[in-house]
Amino acid sequence: MSSIFGTNLKISIFGQSHAPAVGVTIDGLPVGEPIDMDRLRAFMARRAPGGKTWSTQRREADEPEIVCGIAGGRTCGAPLTVLIRNTDVRPGDYSAFSDTPRPAHADYTGRIRYSGWNDFSGGGHFSGRLTAPLCAAGGICAQILSRRGIEIGAHLLRAGGAEDAPFDPAGVTAAQLQQVRSAAFPTLLESAGIQMQAAIEQARQDGDSIGGVIECAAVGVPAGFGSPIFDGVENRIAQAVFGIPGVKGLEFGSGFAGSGRRGSQNNDAFTVSDGEVRTVTNNHGGLLGGITSGMPILFRIAMKPTPSIYKPQQSVDLQSMTAAELTIKGRHDPCIAVRAVPCAESAAAVALTDILMDGAYAQWN
Amino acid sequence: MSSIFGTNLKISIFGQSHAPAVGVTIDGLPVGEPIDMDRLRAFMARRAPGGKTWSTQRREADEPEIVCGIAGGRTCGAPLTVLIRNTDVRPGDYSAFSDTPRPAHADYTGRIRYSGWNDFSGGGHFSGRLTAPLCAAGGICAQILSRRGIEIGAHLLRAGGAEDAPFDPAGVTAAQLQQVRSAAFPTLLESAGIQMQAAIEQARQDGDSIGGVIECAAVGVPAGFGSPIFDGVENRIAQAVFGIPGVKGLEFGSGFAGSGRRGSQNNDAFTVSDGEVRTVTNNHGGLLGGITSGMPILFRIAMKPTPSIYKPQQSVDLQSMTAAELTIKGRHDPCIAVRAVPCAESAAAVALTDILMDGAYAQWN
Amino acid sequence: MSSIFGTNLKISIFGQSHAPAVGVTIDGLPVGEPIDMDRLRAFMARRAPGGKTWSTQRREADEPEIVCGIAGGRTCGAPLTVLIRNTDVRPGDYSAFSDTPRPAHADYTGRIRYSGWNDFSGGGHFSGRLTAPLCAAGGICAQILSRRGIEIGAHLLRAGGAEDAPFDPAGVTAAQLQQVRSAAFPTLLESAGIQMQAAIEQARQDGDSIGGVIECAAVGVPAGFGSPIFDGVENRIAQAVFGIPGVKGLEFGSGFAGSGRRGSQNNDAFTVSDGEVRTVTNNHGGLLGGITSGMPILFRIAMKPTPSIYKPQQSVDLQSMTAAELTIKGRHDPCIAVRAVPCAESAAAVALTDILMDGAYAQWN
Amino acid sequence: MSSIFGTNLKISIFGQSHAPAVGVTIDGLPVGEPIDMDRLRAFMARRAPGGKTWSTQRREADEPEIVCGIAGGRTCGAPLTVLIRNTDVRPGDYSAFSDTPRPAHADYTGRIRYSGWNDFSGGGHFSGRLTAPLCAAGGICAQILSRRGIEIGAHLLRAGGAEDAPFDPAGVTAAQLQQVRSAAFPTLLESAGIQMQAAIEQARQDGDSIGGVIECAAVGVPAGFGSPIFDGVENRIAQAVFGIPGVKGLEFGSGFAGSGRRGSQNNDAFTVSDGEVRTVTNNHGGLLGGITSGMPILFRIAMKPTPSIYKPQQSVDLQSMTAAELTIKGRHDPCIAVRAVPCAESAAAVALTDILMDGAYAQWN
Repeated sequence: MSSIFGTNLKISIFGQSHAPAVGVTIDGLPVGEPIDMDRLRAFMARRAPGGKTWSTQRREADEPEIVCGIAGGRTCGAPLTVLIRNTDVRPGDYSAFSDTPRPAHADYTGRIRYSGWNDFSGGGHFSGRLTAPLCAAGGICAQILSRRGIEIGAHLLRAGGAEDAPFDPAGVTAAQLQQVRSAAFPTLLESAGIQMQAAIEQARQDGDSIGGVIECAAVGVPAGFGSPIFDGVENRIAQAVFGIPGVKGLEFGSGFAGSGRRGSQNNDAFTVSDGEVRTVTNNHGGLLGGITSGMPILFRIAMKPTPSIYKPQQSVDLQSMTAAELTIKGRHDPCIAVRAVPCAESAAAVALTDILMDGAYAQWN
Repeated sequence: MSSIFGTNLKISIFGQSHAPAVGVTIDGLPVGEPIDMDRLRAFMARRAPGGKTWSTQRREADEPEIVCGIAGGRTCGAPLTVLIRNTDVRPGDYSAFSDTPRPAHADYTGRIRYSGWNDFSGGGHFSGRLTAPLCAAGGICAQILSRRGIEIGAHLLRAGGAEDAPFDPAGVTAAQLQQVRSAAFPTLLESAGIQMQAAIEQARQDGDSIGGVIECAAVGVPAGFGSPIFDGVENRIAQAVFGIPGVKGLEFGSGFAGSGRRGSQNNDAFTVSDGEVRTVTNNHGGLLGGITSGMPILFRIAMKPTPSIYKPQQSVDLQSMTAAELTIKGRHDPCIAVRAVPCAESAAAVALTDILMDGAYAQWN
Repeated sequence: MSSIFGTNLKISIFGQSHAPAVGVTIDGLPVGEPIDMDRLRAFMARRAPGGKTWSTQRREADEPEIVCGIAGGRTCGAPLTVLIRNTDVRPGDYSAFSDTPRPAHADYTGRIRYSGWNDFSGGGHFSGRLTAPLCAAGGICAQILSRRGIEIGAHLLRAGGAEDAPFDPAGVTAAQLQQVRSAAFPTLLESAGIQMQAAIEQARQDGDSIGGVIECAAVGVPAGFGSPIFDGVENRIAQAVFGIPGVKGLEFGSGFAGSGRRGSQNNDAFTVSDGEVRTVTNNHGGLLGGITSGMPILFRIAMKPTPSIYKPQQSVDLQSMTAAELTIKGRHDPCIAVRAVPCAESAAAVALTDILMDGAYAQWN
Repeated sequence: MSSIFGTNLKISIFGQSHAPAVGVTIDGLPVGEPIDMDRLRAFMARRAPGGKTWSTQRREADEPEIVCGIAGGRTCGAPLTVLIRNTDVRPGDYSAFSDTPRPAHADYTGRIRYSGWNDFSGGGHFSGRLTAPLCAAGGICAQILSRRGIEIGAHLLRAGGAEDAPFDPAGVTAAQLQQVRSAAFPTLLESAGIQMQAAIEQARQDGDSIGGVIECAAVGVPAGFGSPIFDGVENRIAQAVFGIPGVKGLEFGSGFAGSGRRGSQNNDAFTVSDGEVRTVTNNHGGLLGGITSGMPILFRIAMKPTPSIYKPQQSVDLQSMTAAELTIKGRHDPCIAVRAVPCAESAAAVALTDILMDGAYAQWN
């Protein structure tokens, strides 16, 4: 069992919510790559908690320390490890949940899996806190991809009954992705963002939470990367995306909607544009047979509502095996989907970097 | 890049649509397991082409030959290889597509990926034909799981505008799964099956195709199997499921619908039933933090419409880089989703066997 | 647990000594590579049993059938599977050994490992017979390497008290390797071969067996392939070489002898020759820090004497847990080291192809 | 390319000799295991530099900080990361070697492999310094193995012309291994230790270095662990052992000496002792067919002489591609083999823990 992702690029995530630190080791990065620390901090800040109405009030600087992997300011071929110290730690808040598991959390399954030895504080290794190192890895990979003309961006497509404008599947541009990455709230339409924030605030006031759907796009990925069967781009993005706590669904291109269409409606006609093979539409989401087509890679992920709500919930006392009511305290996001947006980008960034580092491709080396 | 799945149990799929054979090597099966060949043939026959209005007219006996891995009729610890000879082969049908790629097929991406050396006949290694060895592996794993009280079943939930009754998330039983596995057409409601078959027949007559949504359930899986982050049950099922050609989406439990709910609606309360911890509802689809909860594992997959349709389609001539119209001949399913039903069960069976074989459940923990 | 080797190139070996077949799937070969079947047969014939005084009298044609992975006579990117049917099968010869394990064989350890379900016939999956698919994979990789100027050859350095001339560590040439590969008996010095064959014949007449040391070299491997720590060329060659039954030792360059020297004697001075960086001596065996230096890669492997001898041996009856005398019948090599020579080349060929396919290297793709 | 070892237990080593830190992440440890920090420090101190005549004068406290993986003082199922800060860092000492590679070091191969971006300071990721995290992982695994009755110990068998008494292959005991682990100098015979230290001191005075042979044993490993072909105990120990810089050879049991014997001399007769199956001799080194026999596991590794010597050496100037004389300064061990003794134990400990965690030994078989 491992918290390691990747074949050519290996991302090894470690840490617990209330341990001294969380972090990640990235093994297999291309060499000679500078790491722009300000850009990395800015990327990680999109995920970092604190100061926003939609996020937990836990305060974490999330300052990344690169303890190795760099020489003369550039990647040197050695594994690169980013260490992020946990500072605002309150283990005491969670002592109760080892015997009375929180609904929709991993308290119960983790207890069985690890014979009760798992770290219950803040969910331990199951915590959303572990997406900080994921974003550290994603932010680094995104810089490397960007130098090769590949841009990744995501936005909150649906939340709290509000709907953002979707990306144009065949026409989404790098500029649009850069723009949405820099938005204060991750939507294309300001109006949608306002509605979503209102719904989040309402949920907070109700002691409740909401979920959401994130749409992610990657443009500039050349055609011909990936493989059939078990090692396709979908398989790898899926393995990375389901590493984000709270993800319950994933679809590429027209996805579930496309499954309700006829082939004549869903097939994407090929055409030649500026001497390049393109498709007129992009229901395939940039992926055919597990391999990139050169069109934008598009996927959407379903984030469940934050499991931690402040209403009383039914649980069980695992000692006495009797019903027990539970009321969660502590500090939690009313909508984890917002902070999951850069996590989706990170999952895509590490998966694509892994695939692009594959031996099948020369220009990367 | 590999067509190998699994960590403890390794499934290595080989073959091309029009090569001498397709097959699979299964490495890491539990020992001493008898293989019921009649039951395996019956399982594979659900996927096999021919004789059904909804399937290609290509005739393949799909007779599995176990060339190794057995001693005295039982698994012996050595890799088990199943060989399936291709018999009804017509490579000539496909010669045209190497220069004029079929929309929504892997002709173009495969050509780029493999510098034009890929086998275009019937899609080569990208073909749905490769689900025959997947089902051979799945059928064998399903027998092993069944002996341990784990039953897996799937049905066609949506196709051609018709909708089958969904599984009861918290109440689906082994008996129901066995029943739907033995149905002539894979629906719970006969009426839904009749509508779907009519829609498929209509698509065939129109020279078109349709997609569908498959729902799969696994019951009897004990709590505590799986892991957080990148090695969860969702991650592994996803890697297996996206190995089925045509899958464009995957959701667990309440999935995308759940992402539109509030936490108070989507959280599953714990309760004690017959001395066991259960959840009242099952929006989590049997999985919390990547680990099984003991509730039924539930997922749905979106199958795109069969790419091969008989209407003229727009493509490009890759030699002259000019527009070219394409009309597909050959033999194809108007709805691959029907024959994909046992493939979904197979993906679940190999993924769950892989997870259940993990060392974490040894005497060491 | 798996019989799969490799990271970029995956070699999956299957079969048992007396099962219907043995074989191998090679996943990840470069594309567009023709397979010269005559050359492959000739390579495999060096390992094949029968007709030689030093080999078992078991007769096996070892005819390789490529059931997939080829299109138009060249590798097509799909996994390539070679099937080798077992023809001269006599399971009955081994029925006794399940309860009375043969010394130095895996009868006992395999019985414990697989709870008695393992295939005892001819050693099942533990048999030297499984080196036939290894040589099929090795022979194919050797052709691919040869096209890139890399030649691999091995010879029997020591056996039965006789010693062959060692390769010149810094000067061994492709021509010498090709020559020794075509020798009727694998020695550089005919005189050494004659002495070894006499020692083997003497062992046979005595109902005994002998071991030997194989020296293997690879020339033409460019500098800069491999990695430090756990993924070096030594690590990978070791993993492949210890996959050959009977290997008990492995050393690179000056190996154990070098460990008795001083640094001033063992260090290899760098020099410039024809504009290339070389070393004057080659005690490092072409590998520094797990990475190729451009000098010949040199390793030696220790093969234990054939475990099967015809003298009575002490064993135990595992049913009664009492002492039992055992006398082996059947057909066996008096010196497996001779037929292991092409196996050593094969291990080197698959390991080097795996490493050379790594994403770090452009010219291969 | 990765610095990650293991299948069930994954050891991910990171750091460079003169980076802020070195460390290791251990993923997949059994849960509920206390870590005795004093015992871990004592184990690591055997490898730590400084204060000994045979080691470099570089001073490193090698204080291990466990930043995660523990809850309530015991392993909790989350990856366990040990961070070791580098304190006595002098990058300046090495600036010269990027253009003039040191003989027998990885300066040249690393430069080619990483296009000159590799960290030359102290060898960067190639440095023996990286054995500190290996020993941290090994020391933790050794504690876990010890609780299960498995003891591992190693000694310096040969160095500087002196020879220690070998372990009794069939009779070495846990007590003997514990004793040699606590010796001030790692030999069984004090006299041999005195001779070796004298030889090391002489080499130091001569500005030279020596190598050595390390013998390692593991007792208490039950029979039946491991697998044939590529996943045997030999294969895994080999992959771990060749991760120690300077290892050029490895042999199990009678190894190279056994390859010169006849089968009748090298085969180990089975016998029953105290109701258990044992072998009278142990030329097989506790391993048959890649699987443990229950007898002591025995292997020897050849360590090359320390590459860093103070005599002038011939190298090349890679800028001008002309001959250049090189004289190494800095601080180095005259015999790395001494400090490599606990590294050998560590390689065995991580490899055996990995194997013992395997699913094959779960209730499933």
